[in-house]
Amino acid sequence: MFKDTTVAEINIIMEKAWKAFHAYRKLSLKQRAGFMRAIAAGLDNAPDELIPTAMQETNLPEARLRNEKTRTVFQLTSYAAACEKGEWLEARIDTANPDRTPPKPDIRKMGVPLGPVVVFGASNFPFAYSTAGGDTACALAAGCPVIVKAHPAHAGTSEIVAQIILKAAQQLGLPEGIFAHVHGASFEVGKALVTHPYTKAVGFTGSYGGGKALFDWANQRKEPIPVFAEMGSINPVWLLPGKLQQSAADIAKLYAGSITLGVGQFCTNPGLIIGIEGAPLQEFITALGNEIRQVAPGTMLHPGIAKAYGEKKSAALSQQEVTTVAESAAAPVANQGVPAIASATGKAFLNNPVLHQEVFGPYSLVIRCADIPEMLQVAKHLEGQLTATLMATEQDILEQDELVEAVQNICGRFILNSVPTGVEVCLSMHHGGPFPATTDARFTSVGADGIKRFARPVSFQGWPDSLLPAELKNGNPLGIWRTVNNEVTKDSI
Amino acid sequence: MFKDTTVAEINIIMEKAWKAFHAYRKLSLKQRAGFMRAIAAGLDNAPDELIPTAMQETNLPEARLRNEKTRTVFQLTSYAAACEKGEWLEARIDTANPDRTPPKPDIRKMGVPLGPVVVFGASNFPFAYSTAGGDTACALAAGCPVIVKAHPAHAGTSEIVAQIILKAAQQLGLPEGIFAHVHGASFEVGKALVTHPYTKAVGFTGSYGGGKALFDWANQRKEPIPVFAEMGSINPVWLLPGKLQQSAADIAKLYAGSITLGVGQFCTNPGLIIGIEGAPLQEFITALGNEIRQVAPGTMLHPGIAKAYGEKKSAALSQQEVTTVAESAAAPVANQGVPAIASATGKAFLNNPVLHQEVFGPYSLVIRCADIPEMLQVAKHLEGQLTATLMATEQDILEQDELVEAVQNICGRFILNSVPTGVEVCLSMHHGGPFPATTDARFTSVGADGIKRFARPVSFQGWPDSLLPAELKNGNPLGIWRTVNNEVTKDSI
Repeated sequence: MFKDTTVAEINIIMEKAWKAFHAYRKLSLKQRAGFMRAIAAGLDNAPDELIPTAMQETNLPEARLRNEKTRTVFQLTSYAAACEKGEWLEARIDTANPDRTPPKPDIRKMGVPLGPVVVFGASNFPFAYSTAGGDTACALAAGCPVIVKAHPAHAGTSEIVAQIILKAAQQLGLPEGIFAHVHGASFEVGKALVTHPYTKAVGFTGSYGGGKALFDWANQRKEPIPVFAEMGSINPVWLLPGKLQQSAADIAKLYAGSITLGVGQFCTNPGLIIGIEGAPLQEFITALGNEIRQVAPGTMLHPGIAKAYGEKKSAALSQQEVTTVAESAAAPVANQGVPAIASATGKAFLNNPVLHQEVFGPYSLVIRCADIPEMLQVAKHLEGQLTATLMATEQDILEQDELVEAVQNICGRFILNSVPTGVEVCLSMHHGGPFPATTDARFTSVGADGIKRFARPVSFQGWPDSLLPAELKNGNPLGIWRTVNNEVTKDSI
Repeated sequence: MFKDTTVAEINIIMEKAWKAFHAYRKLSLKQRAGFMRAIAAGLDNAPDELIPTAMQETNLPEARLRNEKTRTVFQLTSYAAACEKGEWLEARIDTANPDRTPPKPDIRKMGVPLGPVVVFGASNFPFAYSTAGGDTACALAAGCPVIVKAHPAHAGTSEIVAQIILKAAQQLGLPEGIFAHVHGASFEVGKALVTHPYTKAVGFTGSYGGGKALFDWANQRKEPIPVFAEMGSINPVWLLPGKLQQSAADIAKLYAGSITLGVGQFCTNPGLIIGIEGAPLQEFITALGNEIRQVAPGTMLHPGIAKAYGEKKSAALSQQEVTTVAESAAAPVANQGVPAIASATGKAFLNNPVLHQEVFGPYSLVIRCADIPEMLQVAKHLEGQLTATLMATEQDILEQDELVEAVQNICGRFILNSVPTGVEVCLSMHHGGPFPATTDARFTSVGADGIKRFARPVSFQGWPDSLLPAELKNGNPLGIWRTVNNEVTKDSI
C-alpha cells in the first residue's frame, strides 16, 4: 500500500512542474523525442519485477502484459518520431507585404505547450494507458511536464514505471519536476491536482462518474482547463439484413471472441448488437449463445470491477423486458466475470435507459428490432460512442443511407465488417467519440494526433528571423512541413 | 424593433436545422464553397439600405463599414477556398497490411461536421463578426447549419444580411433550415439556443459576462458542447528599456493612434502599457498624454457601451493609486467616449485587481514598474490575453529571456514592435488566447483554421474504396493534401 500524497506535497510538486515547464518547453523537438526514447528503452529493459508485479496487481496474464508493454514502447517511440516530424505543430507562415495598403505584417504560427498535464491512469491498461502511456507520451511530446496519479489498483506497477521515467530524466539532465508520480486512493488527491492553478490540462481513462467529476471540477475553476476523459462506451453493432442472411453463424463466432476478449475489459468491447427480428437473427443469437456457453469465466482486474460487473449484469438481466440468452457454463470462482448474452426488443430498448448503460465485462445485449426504421430509432436514441460497427454488404450500405448516416453521427470510429476491439496505434486512428464516450470528441487519445491535445497555437507577428523559434525560421532548419503563404511545403523561404 | 423569437419558434428552427444538417453535410466541399461564395456575392451587391442601416444602428462611419463589408466578403471567399482545399479535414490514411500478425486494418480519418452551430454576433463588428461573419463562414465550411442570434444593437443590419444568406441558399436549392436568424434582447433566447439538444457548438464574440454564461450553460447540458467565446482582453504592451530609450516619442505617437482607433472599440485595443520608471518612460507618458489630448471624443456603438465606458473609466481613475495623465481636451456630446490615459505604479497594479479589468473604449493605463523583476511580476499576474506586445530591441529580447517567456505564456498572438489593433485575416493568424480572453485557447476565430472549431475526426475502418467519402478514396479525386502511411502527400494510393 502507498500513502496518499498530501495537498501540501501536491503544491510542492506543482510548483516544481511549473518551473520545469519553462525549461522543458525550450528543449528542441529532438531533445523531447530523445527523452521519450529513453523512457521507451527503460521500459524495454525494465526491472525483472515489473511483469510479476503487474500480474499480481491486475490479474492480467503474462503474455497480455508483455504485449501491452511492447505496445507502450511502440507508442513512446512512434510519438517521439511524430514529435520530431512536427506536423502536430501546424506551422503556418504568411510573409510580409510592405507594399500593400495597409502594409501586411509577417505572421507565423505554431503550437506551444499548454503547461503541466495531470494524467490519471486506467485500470485496464496498466502500461499503455497509465504511467508511461499514451497521455504521458503525448504531453511530453508537446513540451508539457506530466504529473501521473497512479491507479490505486496497480500502484506498485505504476511506481516501477515512474522510476524508469525519473531515471531517464535524470540521465539526460532534464529539469527536476518534469515528471512526478503521486498516489491517491481518495478523490481528494484527484481534485487537488485538477484544481491546482498550475495544472493546464488533464488526461483520464476510466468510468463516466470519474471522468465527469474531473470535467466539472476543471470547468468550475477560475481558469477552466481542458479535460480529455475517455469514459466508456457500449460500442453498438448493427447487423444489416443482407449480411446477416449471408453469415449469421460466422458473425456470432467472431463476436463471441470480441465480447469475451480479456474478460470483456476493453473500452471498445461490443456491448450492444442490433438486428431485425427473424430467422437469421435467431440463428445468430442461438450461435452466439452456444459460443458464449463455452467460454470460461475469467478473473477480472480487481475485486471492485468484478463486483460492479456482477451487479450491473444482474440489474440488466433482471429488467422485465430482458431475456437471458446464455451464460458461461463453467462455475466461477471469486473475482471472475461470467460471460453472458441477453436479448430484448427494440421497443424495450428505446423505452428503458437502463439498457443503454455500459456493463463493463464480457456481456452483450442483442436488440431485436421490428424493422429498419426501428433500427434507425435505436441509432438516433443512442448516446455518443467510441466506436460503432456495421456488419453489412455493399448493397446494405447503399440501401440504408439514413441508418449509415445516423450511426456515423454518434461515433468516433466507424467500422465495417469487423469487431471494435483492437485499437490500432497509428495516425489515422481516432479514439474519441461524442459525449459521453469522451469529454472532447475533437481529440484522440490514441495515435500521434493525440499530441495536439496538449498544445495551443501562438502567432508571432513581426519577429525577425534571428529571434523566431527554429520551427518558424525562414531556412526551415528542422525540415518540417509548413504552410507558407497558403502552400503546404518543406521549402525554405 | 424586432420581437424576441419564442422558445416554441426556436424548437421548430432547431428541428429544421437538424434535418438540414443531414442533407448539408453530404454536399461536396465544392458545393459548400459555392454557397459561401454566393453569400459573398450577395453581400457585395447588398441592398442600398445596408450601409445606412448599419451606420444608424452602430454609429460607425461609412468608410469603416464599407471596409468591414469588404473584409467580410474576403473572409467568406478565402474560407471558401480553404474549405475546398480541405487541409482542415486533416485526412489521414493508413493502408491495410494483411500479412502482419495480427493483420493491420485499413483506417482512414477525416473531419466531419459537429452539427447545428449557434452564432452570437458582436456589437463592434456588425459584418465581420456577426450574421455572415467569421463564425458563420467557418461553420458553413465545416458542413454545419447555422443559427444566428442577431445582436440587438444592430438587429436591422443583421436582418438584411440574413435575407442575403437565405436568398443564396434558396437560389442554390439548399435544404431549408441550413440557416436561420433569430432575435432576442432577453437572455432567455440565448439560453434556449445553447441548451437545445440539437445545438452542437456555439460561437460568440462579446463580453466576459455573456461568454461565460454561455460556456457554463453549455457545460451543464446533459451532453456538454464546445463554446468558442471571445470575451475581451486588455492586450498588454511591454516597453523594454533599450527600445524605450531609443524612441519613446515615436512609440507614444503610434500608440495614441492604436488606443483611439475606432473610439477604442476593438477587442485588440491596447489597454495596458508597462514600462520602467525613469526619464524615458516619463518622456513616453508626456508624449502620449499630449497626443491623446488632441484626439476628439467619438460616438460609441450604442448608449449602453458609452455608459459602460464612462463608468468603468471613472472607476479606474478613482482608484487611489491611479493618476490621470490626460483626457481629450474637447467636450463630449451624448454617447461619446472621451479618450483618456492614466498611470499607476507596478506595485499598485499587482495589488489591485480592478486595474486588470478591461475598460472597453479609448483608454489605456500606463504601469510604472520599479525594475525588470517587477515587469516580470506583472506578466506573471496577468490573466490570459488575445495579444501581448513587446516594444524591444533585439538586445532587449536576448537579455530578458524570462520576461519574453512569461509574456508568451499568457497570449494568443505575440507582437514585436507594432500595435495589437489590426487583425490580419490569414492562415497564420491566431485570434484566441488563454482564458479569460477566450473559452478555448486551442482554436482561432480569425483565419481559415477557424473551420476546425466545427469539425471532429471520424475514423473509417475497413471500408471499401467505393463506399468511402471522396476525401479518403484511393484516387484522391479532390486532390487534397493527406497523410498516407505517415507521409504528407497529394498522391493517389
